[in-house]
Amino acid sequence: MESYIQTLGIRAKDASRLCAKLGTEAKNRGLLAVAGELRSQSAYLLEENEKDLKAAKEKGVKQSLIDRLRLTEQRISDMAEGLTQVAALEDPIGEVLSMKNRPNGLRVGKKRVPLGVVGIIYESRPNVTADAFGLCFKTGNAVILRGGSDAIHSNLAVTKVIKGGLEKENLPQDAILLVEDTSRATVGEMMKLHQYIDVLIPRGGAGLIANVVENSTVPVIETGTGNCHIFVDASADIGRAAEIIENAKTQRMGVCNACESLVIHAAAAEEALPLIAERLNAHQVEIRGDERAREILPGIVPATEEDWGTEYLDAVISVKIVDSLEEAIAHINRYNTGHSESILTKDYDNALKFQDEVDAAAVYVNASTRFTDGFEFGFGAEIGISTQKLHARGPMGLEALTSTKYIIFGNGQIRK
Amino acid sequence: MESYIQTLGIRAKDASRLCAKLGTEAKNRGLLAVAGELRSQSAYLLEENEKDLKAAKEKGVKQSLIDRLRLTEQRISDMAEGLTQVAALEDPIGEVLSMKNRPNGLRVGKKRVPLGVVGIIYESRPNVTADAFGLCFKTGNAVILRGGSDAIHSNLAVTKVIKGGLEKENLPQDAILLVEDTSRATVGEMMKLHQYIDVLIPRGGAGLIANVVENSTVPVIETGTGNCHIFVDASADIGRAAEIIENAKTQRMGVCNACESLVIHAAAAEEALPLIAERLNAHQVEIRGDERAREILPGIVPATEEDWGTEYLDAVISVKIVDSLEEAIAHINRYNTGHSESILTKDYDNALKFQDEVDAAAVYVNASTRFTDGFEFGFGAEIGISTQKLHARGPMGLEALTSTKYIIFGNGQIRK
Repeated sequence: MESYIQTLGIRAKDASRLCAKLGTEAKNRGLLAVAGELRSQSAYLLEENEKDLKAAKEKGVKQSLIDRLRLTEQRISDMAEGLTQVAALEDPIGEVLSMKNRPNGLRVGKKRVPLGVVGIIYESRPNVTADAFGLCFKTGNAVILRGGSDAIHSNLAVTKVIKGGLEKENLPQDAILLVEDTSRATVGEMMKLHQYIDVLIPRGGAGLIANVVENSTVPVIETGTGNCHIFVDASADIGRAAEIIENAKTQRMGVCNACESLVIHAAAAEEALPLIAERLNAHQVEIRGDERAREILPGIVPATEEDWGTEYLDAVISVKIVDSLEEAIAHINRYNTGHSESILTKDYDNALKFQDEVDAAAVYVNASTRFTDGFEFGFGAEIGISTQKLHARGPMGLEALTSTKYIIFGNGQIRK
Repeated sequence: MESYIQTLGIRAKDASRLCAKLGTEAKNRGLLAVAGELRSQSAYLLEENEKDLKAAKEKGVKQSLIDRLRLTEQRISDMAEGLTQVAALEDPIGEVLSMKNRPNGLRVGKKRVPLGVVGIIYESRPNVTADAFGLCFKTGNAVILRGGSDAIHSNLAVTKVIKGGLEKENLPQDAILLVEDTSRATVGEMMKLHQYIDVLIPRGGAGLIANVVENSTVPVIETGTGNCHIFVDASADIGRAAEIIENAKTQRMGVCNACESLVIHAAAAEEALPLIAERLNAHQVEIRGDERAREILPGIVPATEEDWGTEYLDAVISVKIVDSLEEAIAHINRYNTGHSESILTKDYDNALKFQDEVDAAAVYVNASTRFTDGFEFGFGAEIGISTQKLHARGPMGLEALTSTKYIIFGNGQIRK
């Protein structure tokens, strides 16, 4: 007897076979139908979302989480608009990446195909339900979504509306499956379902991601945590450096590509640090510095070993003074999470050396770390930002949701 | 206090930073020096190998395993030759796969970089030690090797000789690290070392691979198991079909791309099956058939449900008769392991439909499944054959041992 989750796995695998066969035109038709359905069912979506909001308030959930949980006319319209944009993107499926003739006459080609079944485990944003569906559907995958219990009414409603759109176009409704049982056990079971799920993408806080990485037997793409550094080299343009750092730290504080730590060359620190501090003070950012930073800015908080490894996601930044580029690179490679790092410099050799030797998904020269994002990189969409090196690294667009298959055309070849 | 395995992880991570910086010329020099060292130290290698052979014989290990364990002058020369060939391959590291200008002037490039630290868990073939080192070193990775206890003296000797070659060229000797403690505990610890190991590749039997997939928190590339099918369509050229099937089943029985199961269209079965059986009988292959196959060949063994899912790796093959291409595809997608599948047909539409809908790393038309192999596909080398869809699928050459990094060149960009 199959468990509830196994049944979902089997249904998803079956649906994935159907989705893989859909042409671009059918997939786009589906996406637009779902977008229309979301818009026309907004009253129903708001009504169901209200149930989650009410329960969250009764439970005393904090305001920032309630804000994330909330659907509004605008957010529903944004979900629909997102699906419309995904429909307009080029379909990566079916592209033949290479085709070569072998000496024995075999033609060996490599073709882009769907992954199959994508599993997504996420927290309380109900818009992820529609966004993840859109990217998976466009790439011919079926998706199993496991959202948080806080958002269950919203997620059920969004899923129902999406299925309604698919039904109108006679497309497989099991292309999206929501795990309706939000007990912890279902997450555990989902993580062991490698027979049916081809990849699991956790989207949420560090605790959720660590749990999935530790316990999943399904291949995982680790996303999100960003302890991002900016290194101010000896030759940096100080005015520009202050502006970039202000942007990277304060343009949005709670995101993974925000700057969490400054590394400053000693030769630039005395001039740069007061200027940077002034910019950050205007946004009430707390600065935690090492001993040398505190000699320049006596008022700041001492940084501890723990600070170097912390992703604050808040109005705090750490500062370390170094004597060389090599020391900066070693510090960053020791404490970073492999997300986004930037060097501010006028020195050509240092720019290239930093870019070569810092081990991260995105390494910048003279720009804010805030650009690590699928839309900013020109992918038109994003399912998350991978901080691992396997399969996809950095912002993941549609291609990250595909695999390849070798297609071989012969005329009777046997191996000698 | 770090454990032995953690210490190896730290050393490998440090070495990987050095390896990543090596230019193509230095890496090739290292590979050729190691090849020379293996050749000149063959007496020492044979002597150490003899210890493993003696111990295996005393333990009563079966002959086929002893044969796999044995080093000979020829096998040592083959290892050296393999490294020389890898040196001659193009270096994939550093290639910029794309570079685009964004509207804000940022130049966003995607560059091929090493994975970092590769872990390999394998069984008793000591040649894997040199082969895996060569592929990892060429791609700027450090490698941690955990071979079987049966081969420990051989693996220690091969590793020592490799380090000797690296030393002669002043290259980082920790580019190769062998786990000298072959207790079960070290495998378990290695599988949890995601802080230092970027990918784990198990090479060996189904039990080893399942253990790694089930227990590793390090990202795994699943390799090897192949329950490969050949489908004889109604329109197949029967003579050619018999020849291809004989080749796919018998050219080498114990390998993952050997054919384990035939699926035959009912319209072709009466003519094809006796011809195929004649070819297979000449190699003492046992045929296990479904009821309809047994009507045609009354002498054969009945196939059970278990047969459809079994990778025999032996002189056995199963036969199922189907009434349509759709039934064949459904049967194959249900029982295959995602390795290699082939259709023998003269029908254009059926060839494409089979290739589109069968879910496997390599899908053939009118050729033997035995070609799924890095050398046969023209990659010049192979670290294994991936049967998963993430990162790499099918034969894995040098590129499968690389990741990418976004390199972004700005001149002061901040995010609005």
